[in-house]
Amino acid sequence: MKQTVFAGVDVGGTFVKIGLVTKEGKILNQTQIPTQAERPAAEMLKRTAQTIRELVGQQGDCELEGTGIGTAGSVNVEKGILYEAPNMQKWKNQPFGEMLSGELDVPVVVDNDANVAAWGEYAYGAGQGTKYMLLVTLGTGVGGGLVLDGRPYRGAVDAGGEFGHTLIDYNGWMCSCGCKGCVEAYVGTKGILRQVQEGLQANPDSILSKMDPDKIMPVDVSHAADQGDKLALHVLKQTGIYLGYGLANAVNLLNIQRVVVGGGVAKAGDRILKPALETMKANSLRVLAEAADLVPAKLGNSAGLVGAAWLAAFESGKL
Amino acid sequence: MKQTVFAGVDVGGTFVKIGLVTKEGKILNQTQIPTQAERPAAEMLKRTAQTIRELVGQQGDCELEGTGIGTAGSVNVEKGILYEAPNMQKWKNQPFGEMLSGELDVPVVVDNDANVAAWGEYAYGAGQGTKYMLLVTLGTGVGGGLVLDGRPYRGAVDAGGEFGHTLIDYNGWMCSCGCKGCVEAYVGTKGILRQVQEGLQANPDSILSKMDPDKIMPVDVSHAADQGDKLALHVLKQTGIYLGYGLANAVNLLNIQRVVVGGGVAKAGDRILKPALETMKANSLRVLAEAADLVPAKLGNSAGLVGAAWLAAFESGKL
Repeated sequence: MKQTVFAGVDVGGTFVKIGLVTKEGKILNQTQIPTQAERPAAEMLKRTAQTIRELVGQQGDCELEGTGIGTAGSVNVEKGILYEAPNMQKWKNQPFGEMLSGELDVPVVVDNDANVAAWGEYAYGAGQGTKYMLLVTLGTGVGGGLVLDGRPYRGAVDAGGEFGHTLIDYNGWMCSCGCKGCVEAYVGTKGILRQVQEGLQANPDSILSKMDPDKIMPVDVSHAADQGDKLALHVLKQTGIYLGYGLANAVNLLNIQRVVVGGGVAKAGDRILKPALETMKANSLRVLAEAADLVPAKLGNSAGLVGAAWLAAFESGKL
Repeated sequence: MKQTVFAGVDVGGTFVKIGLVTKEGKILNQTQIPTQAERPAAEMLKRTAQTIRELVGQQGDCELEGTGIGTAGSVNVEKGILYEAPNMQKWKNQPFGEMLSGELDVPVVVDNDANVAAWGEYAYGAGQGTKYMLLVTLGTGVGGGLVLDGRPYRGAVDAGGEFGHTLIDYNGWMCSCGCKGCVEAYVGTKGILRQVQEGLQANPDSILSKMDPDKIMPVDVSHAADQGDKLALHVLKQTGIYLGYGLANAVNLLNIQRVVVGGGVAKAGDRILKPALETMKANSLRVLAEAADLVPAKLGNSAGLVGAAWLAAFESGKL
């Protein structure tokens, strides 16, 4: 009997990652192709379809049952449309689903990239065994994705999960979204660097004070912390505390069971995650705090790929 | 043919409200009995069952198909158990569902009172026609109840919806829960009165400055506002703004379609609700703000009763 596989597609501004994934979440093979977002979207999807066919051919003895696309930008899941994406500006209202299913002759489901990463961690990663999960992705921005009651959650117009733009201080730091006090304004890259800048004067001996202030990145803060730098350690701890306040809101509102934290900045590990967990619990009602934990993400960069494939399997009823 | 009816039961610390409700949300008849929480819970449920039988008898020609109980305190919905309630301290781990269904010989479903009020507004009140709704109840405390994707939402251990304890300032006013900056600390009764106290010095001519400061209640602030009192108008507006920050968090996280605001304090109407709506929209991402509105609750005190009956109908698959 042929093995059932699902294709996962992760569309970013530069590359499209494509892989064949089993129902158990195992990536059988994968590759990537350039996005070429200056060309028509239909071309990218034709090349994607061709790549999927090649992967199926290489793998042999398998049957493609469906394809899931996770894409940057805002989408309509029901209609399979990419509305728009900041880093693929020529593509507006593109029927990704229809275009790709026309090429492949299998059902295609389209979702936002932050969402499919959450579905991936839920199905095959750090969220396994839970039914109520929030994935937080720490990077330049702060992404979010929700699984509630064992189902992908998207909200009224598929735009929910914006954890990074929930606020922790209505009169706080200005966020890139134009509002004050968002979680992202504190724990996104800019927020971490602002914390560093504000701490440099009181910590003239910090390793970070010897760097070009315009070139410091969160990874430098992590490295400095590894060397015991007081300011760096303080900034990472404080970043965790800010994150924890935001998480407490999600826990109090949603009775979340597991928070999964991924993204590049999360590589700082317990220096951020431990204070985040403590602050989250301390600011949640007792019963809710007891029901909630927090763990690092497991799947790294492949969360989106396997999550997109999982979504295809989930929607097809083949799980 | 006999009319199908469901009994709604709303258990509070002093009274148990009981009514017969049609599938369309019409209350056919209702009454209340004393709770007598110092006596065994089984007695209260026996008296409740007797009252339901009497109501069915008075109504005539109707068939009781199920009963829903909304109760103060924390519950296990699946098992139909009241864990504990602050105002009914003798009752711990009481199997309300089993006890009442044993008396009535119909399915009984048990839920938290804030939740059933949300189900009531969703099914028959201000939330009709939406699938993503947050009910906020403004009073001494600030309650919350969520309908997500057309289903009652409760969370991992049936304890979600604690909107009042989501925070808007991690370093803000102390809340009765022991944390800082919760929505309730600003817009609950104590929060409103704190706003008044803090404004009195700068507003010596306020009507409120002529009252015994320990006896001012939110309703007095409303009355003063009706007379054009500057401080009172400012406090109500600011209360709406604080509420709006909290609501923006729910909107950004959940892509909520409709916020319904009820409870005694909400009687101040647009003086609170208009700034709440404006602040909610201004602090939500554009797509999310466009998808969200805010309206006053419709059902008043009967929301819990009809919501409990609706839950019984919903769970029985008879809707």
